[in-house]
Amino acid sequence: MFYYFCGHIHTDMNILISNGIILPMNATEGGELYFNGYLGIEGERIAFVSADSRKAEEFTVRHKDDCKLIDATGKIVMPGFINTHTHVAMALLRGISDDVPLMEWLQEHIWPIEGKMGYKEIFDGARLGILEMLLGGTTTFVDMYPYEEAVAEAAESAGIRAVVSPCPMDFRMEHFEEDWRAVRDRFSGSRLVSMMMGPHAIYTLSDKNLQRSITLARELGIGSHVHLAETETEVSDAFARYGMSPTAFFEKAGLFNTPTLAAHCVMVDDRDIEILATRNVSVAHNPQSNMKLASGIAPVKKMLDAGVNVCLGTDGASSNNDLDMWEEMRTASLLQKVATKDPCSIPAYTALKMATVNGAKAIGREGELGTLSPGAFADIQLVNIEKPHLYPHTNPVSELVYSTHASDVDTVIVNGRISVEGRRCMTMNEDDVCSSAQEHINRLLQK
Amino acid sequence: MFYYFCGHIHTDMNILISNGIILPMNATEGGELYFNGYLGIEGERIAFVSADSRKAEEFTVRHKDDCKLIDATGKIVMPGFINTHTHVAMALLRGISDDVPLMEWLQEHIWPIEGKMGYKEIFDGARLGILEMLLGGTTTFVDMYPYEEAVAEAAESAGIRAVVSPCPMDFRMEHFEEDWRAVRDRFSGSRLVSMMMGPHAIYTLSDKNLQRSITLARELGIGSHVHLAETETEVSDAFARYGMSPTAFFEKAGLFNTPTLAAHCVMVDDRDIEILATRNVSVAHNPQSNMKLASGIAPVKKMLDAGVNVCLGTDGASSNNDLDMWEEMRTASLLQKVATKDPCSIPAYTALKMATVNGAKAIGREGELGTLSPGAFADIQLVNIEKPHLYPHTNPVSELVYSTHASDVDTVIVNGRISVEGRRCMTMNEDDVCSSAQEHINRLLQK
Repeated sequence: MFYYFCGHIHTDMNILISNGIILPMNATEGGELYFNGYLGIEGERIAFVSADSRKAEEFTVRHKDDCKLIDATGKIVMPGFINTHTHVAMALLRGISDDVPLMEWLQEHIWPIEGKMGYKEIFDGARLGILEMLLGGTTTFVDMYPYEEAVAEAAESAGIRAVVSPCPMDFRMEHFEEDWRAVRDRFSGSRLVSMMMGPHAIYTLSDKNLQRSITLARELGIGSHVHLAETETEVSDAFARYGMSPTAFFEKAGLFNTPTLAAHCVMVDDRDIEILATRNVSVAHNPQSNMKLASGIAPVKKMLDAGVNVCLGTDGASSNNDLDMWEEMRTASLLQKVATKDPCSIPAYTALKMATVNGAKAIGREGELGTLSPGAFADIQLVNIEKPHLYPHTNPVSELVYSTHASDVDTVIVNGRISVEGRRCMTMNEDDVCSSAQEHINRLLQK
Repeated sequence: MFYYFCGHIHTDMNILISNGIILPMNATEGGELYFNGYLGIEGERIAFVSADSRKAEEFTVRHKDDCKLIDATGKIVMPGFINTHTHVAMALLRGISDDVPLMEWLQEHIWPIEGKMGYKEIFDGARLGILEMLLGGTTTFVDMYPYEEAVAEAAESAGIRAVVSPCPMDFRMEHFEEDWRAVRDRFSGSRLVSMMMGPHAIYTLSDKNLQRSITLARELGIGSHVHLAETETEVSDAFARYGMSPTAFFEKAGLFNTPTLAAHCVMVDDRDIEILATRNVSVAHNPQSNMKLASGIAPVKKMLDAGVNVCLGTDGASSNNDLDMWEEMRTASLLQKVATKDPCSIPAYTALKMATVNGAKAIGREGELGTLSPGAFADIQLVNIEKPHLYPHTNPVSELVYSTHASDVDTVIVNGRISVEGRRCMTMNEDDVCSSAQEHINRLLQK
């Protein structure tokens, strides 16, 4: 799969991380660990991962005038998270409406405000969401929203990797055509930003506009990012209108001929799951959003057992209400255990894979992202485990999934560049980002 | 209801908290708020709560030589949490076994280690759990475990309020008889520690030993704390053995003639709920434990609608894996929404009530704990909302339930005494607590 790269960030730094517990996420299950491990970064990429201190010595000799040293004593070193479904600018709408029925939420609260949001609001909203994600160890996110150009600009300037999905919907096709061209024109050659098509959902697209999206994805050599089978209503409406499920409809329409990432898949039956597995559709599971909006519980265990690549997303912050992949990972595991009546469902290492390697696969970057392997891009988080709520240490994998919080993330590296250090964001002024968001929402909420 | 008080902590300090957003938790719904509020503490109790700065001035004049000032700018001031069901010393067992079937978990992992735990291990395990709870804003916990004397000692020395429940089980009645006497003898007159009886569960107690517990509770004038209807097996076994549900069995046995706090109540039917409501049994809902052990989803909405007082607990850290009431509150709300297919289930303010006022009611301390009202005990937490993941600020109640984490708690006051300030515990050496726990588990895990 080919992705457009756009813009430029120069990162010639070399970094040596020492004395950490390294969890490379390259085992099938159980999780290989390097206790007292070393990891070297040359420019954008990981040069080596090893438990051998001689490797580290060689690395520092080779880069003696240009090597930043990070002491990871008391920290777990692991891949940054890949948040595979979000509407990051909705961080601006956090908390404006909760605990109301879905249609009231959309029609009376969310849509009226979204209608007033332009490039500037979406840029600043995206910066707020990106700041939250970076501080919580997310190094890549897959977005869908109007003005993805603004989201791309926010991501590149903040030093986070983004896959933006300009989003065709019947009522704003003109905006969509402008948006995907702007992303292509401004961000070709970026080291951080790439693009997917974002055909919104079966219920917001005419056949013609869906076909336009599919054609563009094929022509540009990119994948598609879609909402699929999120609610019972969506599925029953599809049967009423097309005589088939949304999954079957999209297959018939040819959407799955290009690589597809489908968000939610709450209401999929066995036949749908077979289609998703056969056509290599990746599924972004968003457990907290599905719970908060009362959409239902996605059959994640069944999908994984059928061979579907299931990864994790937060959805937008107004239906969650955060962009915290630690919570999604924990909730995905706990929710599936209770739903399947099996405490062995989604064990900790599987949840970690969903948040990292499976996410990389979903955006066509398997082996390059979501893992700490030589040659992979250096998208890394360091988790401080010297906290009472993580004691005693007996099993790092369990600790990460069942007890760790976003606030335990100490350092975040994206594409070889340090975005967070000592829990402070190095690429954005946190106060400015927060106060801009507050000003926007204060203004937008005025009648 | 009469509770034993034991021990002594002198707290003659006066405290004025200024400029915070005060959420007193004394409204029926919606949550009355004082923006820019003031709260004064005299000794153990809250003297006033007001939005009027003149009240604050009078207070400082009255206590001018002896008044600690806390500036709560950018913070929400609210009641500390009441964790109504835990086995706090199990913090020592965090992460030693996950993702395995329940009986394997108990028989092969938990019980063999618990069998080796004595007073010292339970004291140090309790200190670790208490440290985690204090740092996360919990000011009262209700415990059940062997050696509750050790838990009581740990609680009083750490400055947290505890209701300990010495726990009769058929195989250790002798230990139980020693334990409840020790708690009574050592902690009568304590300002922080009180006692309930802890008849473990229907499946671990003979009729005779259950009756012993009920008799003791009546004689001592205290309530009972019991596991009830946690799993399908427990219920089907009860029907097979007694021809009735565990709830009906306990009612018939006379347990509910003294005030009772029942943990879990996952598998209760309409008849059981009617008994719980009629007999004023409080229910401690432990959503994350019920999910992790795949026990099921308690019908919380139904119980609340029937008038049952439902509060929240974490259960032990080995089935959770933390003692974090923020997570329980959020999970309780999200889980009930998806289970009832209603996004209006357990709105944010209801979840906050479950974690505070309902907990107070469950331990017979309604009006005294779980609320910021004049005359109530000063058990208070200050939450720092100047964090990117809490921006923008539009609705403090929503923000607390859906976006706040334990790590956002800045200051914790228990019984008028500061236990946590600037996220540091003032009553325990954190490093010592953590390293003692690590040493214990390292030794216990040796074959």
